[in-house]
Amino acid sequence: MSDNRIVVYKGPGKVAVETLPYPKLEVPVEVADAMGMSRKADHGVILKCVSTNICGSDQHMVRGRTTAPIGQTLGHEITGEVVEKGSDVQFVDVGDICSVPFNIACGRCRNCREGQTGICMNVNPARAGSAYGYVDMGGWLGGQADFVMVPFADFNLLKFPDRDAALAKIRDLTMLSDIFPTGYHGAKTAGVTTGSTVYVAGAGPVGLAAAYSAQLLGAAVVIVGDLNADRLKQAESFGCETVDISADATLRPDRQHPQHQRGRLRRRRCRFRGQWSRPRRGRATGRRSQLDHGCDPCRRRVGDSRPVCHRRSRGFGRRRQGRHAESPPGARLGEEPQLHHRPVPRAEIQPRADDEHPA
Amino acid sequence: MSDNRIVVYKGPGKVAVETLPYPKLEVPVEVADAMGMSRKADHGVILKCVSTNICGSDQHMVRGRTTAPIGQTLGHEITGEVVEKGSDVQFVDVGDICSVPFNIACGRCRNCREGQTGICMNVNPARAGSAYGYVDMGGWLGGQADFVMVPFADFNLLKFPDRDAALAKIRDLTMLSDIFPTGYHGAKTAGVTTGSTVYVAGAGPVGLAAAYSAQLLGAAVVIVGDLNADRLKQAESFGCETVDISADATLRPDRQHPQHQRGRLRRRRCRFRGQWSRPRRGRATGRRSQLDHGCDPCRRRVGDSRPVCHRRSRGFGRRRQGRHAESPPGARLGEEPQLHHRPVPRAEIQPRADDEHPA
Amino acid sequence: MSDNRIVVYKGPGKVAVETLPYPKLEVPVEVADAMGMSRKADHGVILKCVSTNICGSDQHMVRGRTTAPIGQTLGHEITGEVVEKGSDVQFVDVGDICSVPFNIACGRCRNCREGQTGICMNVNPARAGSAYGYVDMGGWLGGQADFVMVPFADFNLLKFPDRDAALAKIRDLTMLSDIFPTGYHGAKTAGVTTGSTVYVAGAGPVGLAAAYSAQLLGAAVVIVGDLNADRLKQAESFGCETVDISADATLRPDRQHPQHQRGRLRRRRCRFRGQWSRPRRGRATGRRSQLDHGCDPCRRRVGDSRPVCHRRSRGFGRRRQGRHAESPPGARLGEEPQLHHRPVPRAEIQPRADDEHPA
Amino acid sequence: MSDNRIVVYKGPGKVAVETLPYPKLEVPVEVADAMGMSRKADHGVILKCVSTNICGSDQHMVRGRTTAPIGQTLGHEITGEVVEKGSDVQFVDVGDICSVPFNIACGRCRNCREGQTGICMNVNPARAGSAYGYVDMGGWLGGQADFVMVPFADFNLLKFPDRDAALAKIRDLTMLSDIFPTGYHGAKTAGVTTGSTVYVAGAGPVGLAAAYSAQLLGAAVVIVGDLNADRLKQAESFGCETVDISADATLRPDRQHPQHQRGRLRRRRCRFRGQWSRPRRGRATGRRSQLDHGCDPCRRRVGDSRPVCHRRSRGFGRRRQGRHAESPPGARLGEEPQLHHRPVPRAEIQPRADDEHPA
Repeated sequence: MSDNRIVVYKGPGKVAVETLPYPKLEVPVEVADAMGMSRKADHGVILKCVSTNICGSDQHMVRGRTTAPIGQTLGHEITGEVVEKGSDVQFVDVGDICSVPFNIACGRCRNCREGQTGICMNVNPARAGSAYGYVDMGGWLGGQADFVMVPFADFNLLKFPDRDAALAKIRDLTMLSDIFPTGYHGAKTAGVTTGSTVYVAGAGPVGLAAAYSAQLLGAAVVIVGDLNADRLKQAESFGCETVDISADATLRPDRQHPQHQRGRLRRRRCRFRGQWSRPRRGRATGRRSQLDHGCDPCRRRVGDSRPVCHRRSRGFGRRRQGRHAESPPGARLGEEPQLHHRPVPRAEIQPRADDEHPA
Repeated sequence: MSDNRIVVYKGPGKVAVETLPYPKLEVPVEVADAMGMSRKADHGVILKCVSTNICGSDQHMVRGRTTAPIGQTLGHEITGEVVEKGSDVQFVDVGDICSVPFNIACGRCRNCREGQTGICMNVNPARAGSAYGYVDMGGWLGGQADFVMVPFADFNLLKFPDRDAALAKIRDLTMLSDIFPTGYHGAKTAGVTTGSTVYVAGAGPVGLAAAYSAQLLGAAVVIVGDLNADRLKQAESFGCETVDISADATLRPDRQHPQHQRGRLRRRRCRFRGQWSRPRRGRATGRRSQLDHGCDPCRRRVGDSRPVCHRRSRGFGRRRQGRHAESPPGARLGEEPQLHHRPVPRAEIQPRADDEHPA
Repeated sequence: MSDNRIVVYKGPGKVAVETLPYPKLEVPVEVADAMGMSRKADHGVILKCVSTNICGSDQHMVRGRTTAPIGQTLGHEITGEVVEKGSDVQFVDVGDICSVPFNIACGRCRNCREGQTGICMNVNPARAGSAYGYVDMGGWLGGQADFVMVPFADFNLLKFPDRDAALAKIRDLTMLSDIFPTGYHGAKTAGVTTGSTVYVAGAGPVGLAAAYSAQLLGAAVVIVGDLNADRLKQAESFGCETVDISADATLRPDRQHPQHQRGRLRRRRCRFRGQWSRPRRGRATGRRSQLDHGCDPCRRRVGDSRPVCHRRSRGFGRRRQGRHAESPPGARLGEEPQLHHRPVPRAEIQPRADDEHPA
Repeated sequence: MSDNRIVVYKGPGKVAVETLPYPKLEVPVEVADAMGMSRKADHGVILKCVSTNICGSDQHMVRGRTTAPIGQTLGHEITGEVVEKGSDVQFVDVGDICSVPFNIACGRCRNCREGQTGICMNVNPARAGSAYGYVDMGGWLGGQADFVMVPFADFNLLKFPDRDAALAKIRDLTMLSDIFPTGYHGAKTAGVTTGSTVYVAGAGPVGLAAAYSAQLLGAAVVIVGDLNADRLKQAESFGCETVDISADATLRPDRQHPQHQRGRLRRRRCRFRGQWSRPRRGRATGRRSQLDHGCDPCRRRVGDSRPVCHRRSRGFGRRRQGRHAESPPGARLGEEPQLHHRPVPRAEIQPRADDEHPA
């Protein structure tokens, strides 16, 4: 049985591919001890990783913003093939290609039974909820690796029904472990439904996933704002309206509010302020507070649109706006923004500590 | 290891307590084969039964209305103590007192993940959903027995946190496996919330559980109708308004609709017709159709009340009404209706094939 | 001011176009008196009818199945142009083209505030809820007419933002008053969402609307069953899978359940029994009970599909199946089923008492 | 017809009771012009104010934190008696005692139809949503006055069915215009239901309303934290558990987590961190970030509790914590915190610019 090469944090701005032993069907000692679980994971599988992504959240660790210790393993966006399974794994088999949700859940606690798998109470002694390869999350090894152990596999894994079809679309399917559901969750939580008008603030990978999800959910029109022309082009490519927020913006004349037909909107005027309609989701700060002072007709017009909100703490409207606000206007945010988010076949894993586009 | 005494169907109107071998941690052969599961149930526990109820649904089999074969074991309302557990049972331990939901679910399929455990796809080759001790449900042994095997125990079992406290209230807690949640589900599904006005048609055990649940959910007033004086008295005992539907009925003067203050309501007039407001739930028939012709002011008055509806196929308003309709008015429906529903400590299990009060 | 030609019920199987006075901005006397409203309807508008449909529900009256009196006016699927408005109509104007929901609601009672406009408490002394041109619904005049009075117009009317665009698509838009929202409501209520597998039983106008709505809501596959080849062809035309339930049916080989690849399914086997997963919605009867005995793998396969259920009392799965059961297999159900449901421009209104395809 | 005495903002820290003309049944000019409404409000009523509260939000203006102009009228928590009504007010009558929701809504736009009355699109040219007596809200006069005009009265007013009963409980009922529904909305939105464990951060009037609402919604235990002993006493008076967050706190021994039985919890350890489970609702800052580092067992224990969140922008957990953080520990926050929130009969209206307990 081979060793396990895995991406490891080596200090701010530094990662390395190191070699660890091939994983065992065991839960981390700290989890087993604190939770009263058996060390032996009859519920687990070993996956051979097929593809993965680098998450924006990985950057928090890699850039030294967290208390991640040297040696922290990385990677929670995992797609892989089952190569070994425990005695109580009933519904996935060796050879199955599966997507692994980034958050680890037992499927057996009260929260999991209620669908709140993000705050599973059994997989992390430090708090409710866990993930692979993340600081303070219970010590589960990361999946930017050759192999990874997935506990409670029947519950956690999403098995692709057709192996060949899955491999043919593996780059798309890799998005299913984190990026796409994060965007979908945002659109769903925001109440997007048949006929909605949606503004997505920020066209990073999650923003684009939210925009696409809004379309899936039946939105009549999806408007995407960003500073980055390439990102906006990508949003346009699947039918979104776009707003370049680095320039004074105008709505296309045929889409303009009647009261605006005659003039160009100054930048402040055209900012959609969906957040306002659900203000509890976050406090506007910095540049955002300017954006909030949209002109009255625009405000009224979007009174029934609902902002898309990122799941968990990253209110992405806010975060994206915040980030942009810190960047000099016109700064290129990276050469190939879309590349960052493409699934990285295992052999290509090359952490980019200088990446500028956290997901 | 002791044998397992268990209640068995012996033909229409006949049951017997027979002796089977002590159960193993195994799923039924037919389930394992059809579902591709391992026979060995590392996920299961053996429970020593502490208390149980006879369900109205048991009567379908016992009275010969189903295709239940001679030898069908019975019992799906189970409370017990864990006496043995499989290697992958992580969160319940030997000695725990647990309530067992009547419906068996794997906790791992798409339906279970969405909370639709009543249509689990992995526990019954015959269809989605299963139960203990029931015809055409996958062959799981019943729990009107000394011992019962519970699969996927971490997911299925509701562990009582304090053993002594649980045993002290064991008759109440026995209701948690089927009767109470059935009533609660009805009230919840019907939309009962703070300030609701609720009419519960039929004061059998599930009806009473629905009435009590409506109170828990914040109903301002709960009105219970039945033919049986003892049942109505029980409904009154915890604060419900009652209507004896065997007699001309009147609302208590201080509760009457202003337009009705002067006269007694004839029977047809005071029937609450909540069903009307959600008419898709069932077609009124027989006597019920009379009840539907409430007087206009009453109808308007209860326009915003919501009927309580039984979970799954038994629209209990309909069913109860139907039953009553078949009974001669004034007929006593049994001597001690409340006795039927008390939890029966294991040693006392005495199936009553002539029982008149199905739950 | 011109008179008002209007379709009137003249006895079982007979209707006529009669002439009534031009309508006033007044609510019916019986409504005003019973509800304590002013007769004068400052909240109302007069619409000049532009297009309408004949509803299946109209047939109940026309065929003599109800207590509709001779002279009952007909028509509740109305699209029209505002020609007069009351002093408190603030947000629609003379000249606006509007769709009129079939159910009349005040927008001011508790039920309306909660979105339960189908059981408005202020528009019908006989019970909660009302409609235009219908027996026992408060006496509102029907809209298969030159003109119709619409009360609470700001609340009830759906104004089309662009008059010319609306008139260009008026046949499609006519579906918005009843048929399409009825189908959409069914799909929505049944829980159809991204990735759902949906079976729609019956490809009448509402069934087709439900099928299309399921697509809008994100269903991965929509399967439509009917006896009528033309209807099935129409379902196919917008991407549905179809099942001719008049013949032994088989799933297309590439869509079959793996366990069925080798053989044709007999008819009983392939009936999708979505109802089962929400069995409380109605009791299977007659032929339906046969359909319920689907083969096991099919049942399991569709365990997570959700049936589409018609709003209000017509569980359309049930109803359609019931209708089919009564028809000789192979019977043509009418020459041009799709014609019935096209919007009928006002001048063309020709009630067809012998119509066989109630919506 | 008498004049109208009304509370008016006179600059930071200053208010006065001034006399304005008796109100007319008219909407503000700015609203009528911008929205295309008639100036004449056939939909409105004049209320004689019976009782009112001072809202914490009034303090934003009174303390000079807003752009409120000198002369801004105040008061949006209104209970009153109808003394005049427009021709299209159908369901309230002169003499009715009514509660007025603080937010003005038309009941006729898309948002109102969907129950989103807080973002009504027709009552404020400046943005979606409006209120009485508030800066930038469309110019509606305040209700800390003798009389107030209420538009769209059938939709907005909550009529008390029994005048004498209402007047007998008028101080309680006064809470229905803002404080109580704000707390209830928070508890409801946070998902409180049967059996929930709830922590309410801050025992101001809205916090107490949230705590009481959590009980109404079926919470098994409601824990309230505050610095102020009087507030905590009030929370205790209706059955809440309390935590004095100015001191090291301990859970009552019989309620402690088993792992904590032996020792007192240090303050940091016992902070409930429900926010974490719904982290999108706000970013922890200042002292709050300390509170987030609860001990592990507590965190796990409360993993399934859900924080109560204030409606609209004031995430009250955050706000309250923030406030406390600014106060010296042990500081008295006012002499009679409960007095501030009692309904103030009209004649007693005495704005307290130095009030320390905004609602």
